[in-house]
Amino acid sequence: MHLRLIWPGKTQNAYLLEVQSQYLKKINSMQKCEIIETQVAKGLSEKHSEKIMEIEAAGLEKYLKDDYIICLFDKGKEMNSVQFAQLLERTTLDYPYPITFIVGGFLGLADRILKRANLMMSLSRLTFSHELTRVVLLEQIYRALTITKGRRYAK
Amino acid sequence: MHLRLIWPGKTQNAYLLEVQSQYLKKINSMQKCEIIETQVAKGLSEKHSEKIMEIEAAGLEKYLKDDYIICLFDKGKEMNSVQFAQLLERTTLDYPYPITFIVGGFLGLADRILKRANLMMSLSRLTFSHELTRVVLLEQIYRALTITKGRRYAK
Repeated sequence: MHLRLIWPGKTQNAYLLEVQSQYLKKINSMQKCEIIETQVAKGLSEKHSEKIMEIEAAGLEKYLKDDYIICLFDKGKEMNSVQFAQLLERTTLDYPYPITFIVGGFLGLADRILKRANLMMSLSRLTFSHELTRVVLLEQIYRALTITKGRRYAK
Repeated sequence: MHLRLIWPGKTQNAYLLEVQSQYLKKINSMQKCEIIETQVAKGLSEKHSEKIMEIEAAGLEKYLKDDYIICLFDKGKEMNSVQFAQLLERTTLDYPYPITFIVGGFLGLADRILKRANLMMSLSRLTFSHELTRVVLLEQIYRALTITKGRRYAK
């Protein structure tokens, strides 16, 4: 099935946005993949964090149905690139619905989104900015597809 | 002491290069940090990997003296962002010479460079492209400085 990447709002850093687009194009040459930018909570200061996460959770939920949901989460499961490639291949073959990766916004993901996850995955023990996380995730998906499809990928 | 980031050759992806510059500028507002691009082996195909790594190792060595050397290496030590910030702060205070991070090129680092490392550090169990590794490292250094200097950093 195809891949979906869902996150609140458009990437603000213009250069990271370009890198995103480059990877998305490469991924789409091998497997259908789309990015969905959901509602972002605007005009609220960080002290209203619960409200922000509530608005963003509602935005994300609109796009979730029977998807296989992988939430990016600091304390999630770590794996290496080959293990990730195997997971992605197996799930793509076994699962009749889209595989959907969710990356939180500035404040992360609300608990009720995390609870819907089939898998919580961590890219690193280090904390990355949410925009850099998007790029790293795209690069890993591209790498995974080159691993399973046996293509050469310039490191 | 100041920070140095050393790697073979200029980042080819123009957008990642811009992101690098953005982080470098932010880091320099808090601590002196420079990027040194060393010799890259040109015109050799990947089957001459030993020769490539030899040329790149010689290029890196020209810039290494009494530095505290941290090599980025897949099988190196993993840590979280707070632990990395503490390590960086402690080493900066204790060590009278520059702290130098080395990121390998396309093929990684020669053994003799790894042997000079005071610390081998891994950013993730996942394998990142060497150009993305540069950006992730810069973001972590910036994050580390905001943690130790108590500044707010937009996630």
